[in-house]
Amino acid sequence: MRIGIIGGGQLGRMLALAGTPLGMSFTVLDPGESPCASEVAHHVRAAFNDADALRTLIESNDAVTFEFENIPAAVLAAIATDTLQPPVKALLTAQDRQREKQCFEHIGLPVAPWRYADSQQSVDAAIEALGLPLIAKTATLGYDGKGQQRLKHAEDAADLFAQLGSVPLLIERLVDFEREVSIVGTRNRRGDMVIYPITQNIHRNGILHRSQRIELPRDLKRQGIHNLRNLANTLDYVGTLALECFVCDNVLLGNEFAPRVHNTGHWTLDGTHCSQFENHLRAVVDLPLGSTLSEHPAGMLNLVGQMPPPRQIIQSANTFLHAYNKAPRPGRKLGHINVIGMDQPSVNAQLDALERELGIRSDT
Amino acid sequence: MRIGIIGGGQLGRMLALAGTPLGMSFTVLDPGESPCASEVAHHVRAAFNDADALRTLIESNDAVTFEFENIPAAVLAAIATDTLQPPVKALLTAQDRQREKQCFEHIGLPVAPWRYADSQQSVDAAIEALGLPLIAKTATLGYDGKGQQRLKHAEDAADLFAQLGSVPLLIERLVDFEREVSIVGTRNRRGDMVIYPITQNIHRNGILHRSQRIELPRDLKRQGIHNLRNLANTLDYVGTLALECFVCDNVLLGNEFAPRVHNTGHWTLDGTHCSQFENHLRAVVDLPLGSTLSEHPAGMLNLVGQMPPPRQIIQSANTFLHAYNKAPRPGRKLGHINVIGMDQPSVNAQLDALERELGIRSDT
Repeated sequence: MRIGIIGGGQLGRMLALAGTPLGMSFTVLDPGESPCASEVAHHVRAAFNDADALRTLIESNDAVTFEFENIPAAVLAAIATDTLQPPVKALLTAQDRQREKQCFEHIGLPVAPWRYADSQQSVDAAIEALGLPLIAKTATLGYDGKGQQRLKHAEDAADLFAQLGSVPLLIERLVDFEREVSIVGTRNRRGDMVIYPITQNIHRNGILHRSQRIELPRDLKRQGIHNLRNLANTLDYVGTLALECFVCDNVLLGNEFAPRVHNTGHWTLDGTHCSQFENHLRAVVDLPLGSTLSEHPAGMLNLVGQMPPPRQIIQSANTFLHAYNKAPRPGRKLGHINVIGMDQPSVNAQLDALERELGIRSDT
Repeated sequence: MRIGIIGGGQLGRMLALAGTPLGMSFTVLDPGESPCASEVAHHVRAAFNDADALRTLIESNDAVTFEFENIPAAVLAAIATDTLQPPVKALLTAQDRQREKQCFEHIGLPVAPWRYADSQQSVDAAIEALGLPLIAKTATLGYDGKGQQRLKHAEDAADLFAQLGSVPLLIERLVDFEREVSIVGTRNRRGDMVIYPITQNIHRNGILHRSQRIELPRDLKRQGIHNLRNLANTLDYVGTLALECFVCDNVLLGNEFAPRVHNTGHWTLDGTHCSQFENHLRAVVDLPLGSTLSEHPAGMLNLVGQMPPPRQIIQSANTFLHAYNKAPRPGRKLGHINVIGMDQPSVNAQLDALERELGIRSDT
């Protein structure tokens, strides 16, 4: 079975590694010279807006999926067939923060108060309406904290619109949340869903730093699962998706979602029977979904900017390295470490210890 | 870290899949047009006796290993450096059944009575000395039951030497064994060893059909581990190796060994923290050896000759498919299924059920 993946980064690489044992063969489409997924997949070098290359990818594979969401959706929409999953609708929704918020509101998932702004005047009006502190985000093309700015004082807002590139913005009330969690699951064409245990996520400099399983109070857990199901159903979603929420006063507030396998689900590679990557592939080729049973508490630590020697990481039996073989660069995700343990406090303590031993600063 | 593998079959494929997350990049040397490992590794197309290609492989990689043992060892011996592991000595010993038996005798591992024969006259003398029934095996280049013949009646022996190609033979007393077991482990350069739980193996038509973990009586288990250690030490072995033995009257008899990852260790992909493939790579690049802890009973079923639809195989949460993407051909290993369960009888029953459901005849 031949699978095409738009994007050849670490998510494509881990998809290929997960699907190869099922007998799948992979081709990644990526403009890079040798993207890290090309070590385990054929590589078609083409731009993400190259409609001909995308059409060929769709025509020459049994299923096509994508591993990141900043693909020109209009190009995809024009050529997409049922072969391409998740549906372009999900991509279009995730690419635009306004549509995303409206989608959350549509399914009844509360969000922080927000305004759309496409001029300095409308920025000022949003500040007036929402009050401070706020966070301004470019409505499209943001990731890993890029295109975001926090606003604490009214005087910082004077030229905010220009500062963020004079592009449409979403201005949101800055939420005083207890924690950020994500709910990751996989939906197939029949609408069946499997859902992974919920994780708490810790970001640093706008980039995910660490995820660890967390046992939420029953009601919050139910809200999370309920909202992920509703979101997936409303998007006619096929594949793995991740919903990131804030926990505030015993309510989940929708922050954003990713229409793809997600960094907060990387722990599933070692912590469940069937990882988010394998389940994504099972869904897009319509194989039975795999078990998300997780016998052990688990956590994940991202390796950002520089790669410690593997020797230091894999000394413990329950510590698993996933290196992406990407050239080091500040702020770049180069790999992650999964830790599986007997109880969550000991997993978390081991993640702390790894941060210290590997010289990963844990200050946020 | 760049790793070269001589041979591009399923063992090379699974080595590459196991090592990629550690940040290793793989090149396989194989004469085939598109050997199945080439889906996840660079491929250098060259004959196994192409000394120039082998030398280039050794010079251009940080470590080089092999995935099957029928490589012209003389060619390798002439160019091998410390970069190539396991050592050529292990390959030379495994390639020649006479040397192999002598090695077993050297380490004190009992073997079935045997004779070397290089003429019909010496075949007749062997029969005279050993008595019937016997098994005759070509001294070199045999695998998966090829180049073997059982002898029950003296009259079948009349032209045995010619029948088996007029090549040197090993004639062995046919052992009435209770079961065949294998002991798989990994040794590093410092002589440290990790050893996996022992499996019982069931062959069909000379090809491994099924392996399942077995709890041997304490003394037999000790013999197995002791002999694997001695074998690895005497060969200055680095990497994963497998020792196959017969259980006869509470004694282990050495049958053969493989200087590589082995089919009877495939269950470790899903049944242990660190598989035989990953540990092989850790050993050859001198990373700390991984844990062979196996929390769950496990078993493996080979898929030979034809490939059932993946849908049928992966319906159970504890059933794991490993497809090799090789063209179907009678007697060809195309994949395997690992089953992990709560207790060994239920794993074995599930293997039975899979045999029935997938139409794999279980008669031997």
